[in-house]
Amino acid sequence: MDCPLCPASAEQIIWEDGRCRVIRVDDDAHPGFCRVIWNEHVTEMSDLLPADRRHLLDVVLATETALRTLLHPDKINLASFGNMVPHLHWHVIPRYRDDRHFPESVWGPAQRQGAVHAAADPVALARAIDSALAAQA
Amino acid sequence: MDCPLCPASAEQIIWEDGRCRVIRVDDDAHPGFCRVIWNEHVTEMSDLLPADRRHLLDVVLATETALRTLLHPDKINLASFGNMVPHLHWHVIPRYRDDRHFPESVWGPAQRQGAVHAAADPVALARAIDSALAAQA
Repeated sequence: MDCPLCPASAEQIIWEDGRCRVIRVDDDAHPGFCRVIWNEHVTEMSDLLPADRRHLLDVVLATETALRTLLHPDKINLASFGNMVPHLHWHVIPRYRDDRHFPESVWGPAQRQGAVHAAADPVALARAIDSALAAQA
Repeated sequence: MDCPLCPASAEQIIWEDGRCRVIRVDDDAHPGFCRVIWNEHVTEMSDLLPADRRHLLDVVLATETALRTLLHPDKINLASFGNMVPHLHWHVIPRYRDDRHFPESVWGPAQRQGAVHAAADPVALARAIDSALAAQA
């Protein structure tokens, strides 16, 4: 099977360990958008062993905490769909009241041209993810 | 503040404990759609204490497991947005290749009229959530 998320090609990796990676998503309207990808090709959260499930969610929530600390968004959106690419990954999206889609999801209809809020600095984001993981442990 | 999720009014509650509840979402195109609502008015996952965070995610994933067991969907979609109602809640949605929005999210554009797949029986779903929680413990 030809899965685009199995190889980590053409990705800007922000943070990684042996099990998963956090990448920056290339989205003009939402530059702060990050994705957490489980390295192994698995489809659903409930296919993971309990310890792996916990680890992936810890990384997702550490990414949420790091984005809140660095960017102060109005809201965080979390989602795991996999309808188009059934390889387990999470969207972690800082949202702002004046962004292109608010209060719709970023997959919904645009509401306005929208303000574009800067992405986090990748090095600062990696450090903030490490700090949040240490605080959760 | 007038939050529509603080009181559990006009909800079909499938499962609950002292901290959160699983309800059936009234969605004609996606009858299996469930929502897991944290009872206390909190905005983000990272606002919860670690034990509460873990508990809520355990219930979300037990709901995923229960829906997979009973309905055999092609995919599960998980999402926590809160842009419209900033009271912590999770969408747990069984998805089918022939449903109205697949492979788009249910907040995206409709792709077709779409097949309507039955919801789970509420009593069987409550039991399956209990079983999944016991298996996770």
